[in-house]
Amino acid sequence: MHKNVEVAIIGAGTAGLYALSQVKKKTDDFVIINSGPYGTTCARVGCMPSKSLIHIAKTYHDRDEFEKSGIANGEALKVSIPKVLQRVREHRDFLTEHNVKSVERYGDKVIDGKAEFIDSNTLRVGEMTISAKKIIVATGSTPVLDAAWEDFREHILTTDEIFEQEDLPESLGVLGLGVIGLELGQAFARLGIKVTAVQSKEFIGGLSDPEINAIMVEACQKDFDMLFGERATLSKVGEKIKITSGEREVLVDKVLVSVGRKPNLEALKLENLGIKLDKKGMPAFDRNTMQIEELPIFLTGDATADCPLQHEAADEGRIAGYNAVHTLRKFRRKTPLSIVFSDPQIAFVGVDYQEIKDNPEVVIGSFDFSKQQRAMLMNTNKGLAKLFVQKSDGKLLGAQMAVPEGEHLAHHLAWAIEQGLCVHDMLELPFYHLTLEEGLFMMLLACSKKIDVKKEGVLELSFLDK
Amino acid sequence: MHKNVEVAIIGAGTAGLYALSQVKKKTDDFVIINSGPYGTTCARVGCMPSKSLIHIAKTYHDRDEFEKSGIANGEALKVSIPKVLQRVREHRDFLTEHNVKSVERYGDKVIDGKAEFIDSNTLRVGEMTISAKKIIVATGSTPVLDAAWEDFREHILTTDEIFEQEDLPESLGVLGLGVIGLELGQAFARLGIKVTAVQSKEFIGGLSDPEINAIMVEACQKDFDMLFGERATLSKVGEKIKITSGEREVLVDKVLVSVGRKPNLEALKLENLGIKLDKKGMPAFDRNTMQIEELPIFLTGDATADCPLQHEAADEGRIAGYNAVHTLRKFRRKTPLSIVFSDPQIAFVGVDYQEIKDNPEVVIGSFDFSKQQRAMLMNTNKGLAKLFVQKSDGKLLGAQMAVPEGEHLAHHLAWAIEQGLCVHDMLELPFYHLTLEEGLFMMLLACSKKIDVKKEGVLELSFLDK
Repeated sequence: MHKNVEVAIIGAGTAGLYALSQVKKKTDDFVIINSGPYGTTCARVGCMPSKSLIHIAKTYHDRDEFEKSGIANGEALKVSIPKVLQRVREHRDFLTEHNVKSVERYGDKVIDGKAEFIDSNTLRVGEMTISAKKIIVATGSTPVLDAAWEDFREHILTTDEIFEQEDLPESLGVLGLGVIGLELGQAFARLGIKVTAVQSKEFIGGLSDPEINAIMVEACQKDFDMLFGERATLSKVGEKIKITSGEREVLVDKVLVSVGRKPNLEALKLENLGIKLDKKGMPAFDRNTMQIEELPIFLTGDATADCPLQHEAADEGRIAGYNAVHTLRKFRRKTPLSIVFSDPQIAFVGVDYQEIKDNPEVVIGSFDFSKQQRAMLMNTNKGLAKLFVQKSDGKLLGAQMAVPEGEHLAHHLAWAIEQGLCVHDMLELPFYHLTLEEGLFMMLLACSKKIDVKKEGVLELSFLDK
Repeated sequence: MHKNVEVAIIGAGTAGLYALSQVKKKTDDFVIINSGPYGTTCARVGCMPSKSLIHIAKTYHDRDEFEKSGIANGEALKVSIPKVLQRVREHRDFLTEHNVKSVERYGDKVIDGKAEFIDSNTLRVGEMTISAKKIIVATGSTPVLDAAWEDFREHILTTDEIFEQEDLPESLGVLGLGVIGLELGQAFARLGIKVTAVQSKEFIGGLSDPEINAIMVEACQKDFDMLFGERATLSKVGEKIKITSGEREVLVDKVLVSVGRKPNLEALKLENLGIKLDKKGMPAFDRNTMQIEELPIFLTGDATADCPLQHEAADEGRIAGYNAVHTLRKFRRKTPLSIVFSDPQIAFVGVDYQEIKDNPEVVIGSFDFSKQQRAMLMNTNKGLAKLFVQKSDGKLLGAQMAVPEGEHLAHHLAWAIEQGLCVHDMLELPFYHLTLEEGLFMMLLACSKKIDVKKEGVLELSFLDK
């Protein structure tokens, strides 16, 4: 069987569906080829269930603060892991339903199966061949697993599986303290599971600033054990898994593997496109058009391994979708914004610390959130935030932080950078008293003392006739 | 005894201390005249203790959500009002300490007593006369009380007194559901006190949009009883206070009076300045200079009865302080931003709903936070937000909302208005997935469909070469 279409979209996840939203505006002549469950990585196994879990874990963990707030019997609270997981799945199912329906309504435009390239305009899906003027690759990613673990696979959990468990064992190893390992490791620890995390790098949660990292490590050590150092190996000992890292060994019931995700590109047979692939099998693409080289093919979402965040995948889908049905245009990409929903919350905005740390043209202003007044009143006063600012004119460049409610402060800074604001512009904004935003003000104030431009009059106000 | 100084500041609260911060940069020749306790209204009896109380009340109230999240025995929790009040005072004392010290360090420049004007350059404080080239009035405000309640004053509580109580009775009337009545009424109700609030207007918490108000009233009715209608009268019946509003009567142990605050101007004898005072005894002043008419006198903070918010008092102090020691300049005032720390949080930004509701040049985009995904995962999905936008060009003008974490969303909007942003600018910003900020995106999206300017290309992205 053969099909001719304007646009073929491979993958019905976030990137694919957002690509479709643009394609649909111009043509009905498209197909969506999808293999595996509908509902997007984010909603099925990513941000959605993890945020539900993290919220419950935080709620339960708050009981430690009850006594000093005048609330008695916090120790009577008991959490049921099976009920928590069930609640998470209820939330998940409710919120994926929309995504699933938004695919199903396309009926026979949706083709179930794995696509592979025959050439740059032709795909094979099982018995079917599809010719498409434009093809959008939005195949997503899969958790990385080591083949050596196959012998005790039933003790290994990935994010594809952990939310599907009826219950969890008493002890859990967490392999890798990147974003996912940190978020889930901390949440499960707070729900009473004995968590031991193993991390080969000294930095956790994607952090790159040593001071912020040290504060985050200290905060996490109150929740769970961490082994830093050599890459861990796993082996089965009786009904347990032994994690070995250097000379240290620990026995756990199961292991959550969170050592990264790899793009789902292998099955596509990109080698049939006659283009150069790098060592990891990745083609070259332009992140402002999403086009692969000069081909009529666009690469988007987690499949790019570039920026595995839902809002970036949505943008990449939109760009690819637009370019699939219009004359090719370059789009401006947004200020980088990345958030880890740990406690405190880690966030990254704009340029990274490692990019600017040795640059004398950049000054850093920091604020210690253990002294933040509102956070004190909410018993959440911990963490550190740093703001990176151009010395010559005070222009905001980026920030890194591990602070309470970092998600909101990170949006503030990303939006300010997007507007090209400088420190003096920011200090003139209204900061409501006894909000966490005042912590941001303090960081800006610290920067204002280090930049070359000084302000006349009053730092926090401008003249009406300026 | 007589003293000659460059600047006399009457009042050592927020406005007075911020005025001093500017005066100090130019001269040491100043006095601060203060009557009553140090520590600022905000920190002693305002935002500071109320936010501590509200946080504890929310923490205790959260137990209602435990069961469905898989946490058992929430009903075993017991709260101790005396311990809560003690905790609030601990927080309060810790945080006022800094304010108190920042006055005390000025030693004999601080004069204890009530000041009154002899003329526009001369003050009397007890036996002392003070001649000052410039005078800054920052005398703050006092809760309004009815003289008719003197007979049962021991049953009446104001914010000056409520945080000083060792314990609170079983039932509490709340007279007035403005900001203070709503915040404290809801908090005490959530701590298990039987609260009955009486409000003569239909709007609560300062709201002016009927739909948002209706949602807020419904939310509050889950926490406490409300009587709307005629202005209430109080009388003593045995050991109880009877609140009568129209035909309805209710007996309570004590009454929190929160019917407003009046500026502390009476003792100043403004009549000696030879200027016109309005019916309420208020002089005319310029809110961009804080100057009273053409006098060498500046009026600031709650004493203006203009904008009784800490960050506005700080700005007014800064403006007055600067103008007291420099050639007079007009300062730009900030985008209005006001937040009520109820649940959901009420916030007001920019122009008010009543100003624009009949203006055909303004469109309104709203979003129902009961459908907000992140809020659902946190069991806080309730509320409504409305955004007011100029129809011709999509420029943001203002917003009103009662939504979870409104304090952060309100800052976002105030800052956007301050930058003169329009709907299309905002839609291009990064909105991280599964944050409350996405609710703001939905409001912007609703506005984008109603404004006259339409966007080429992709709504959420701009071309690199635009």
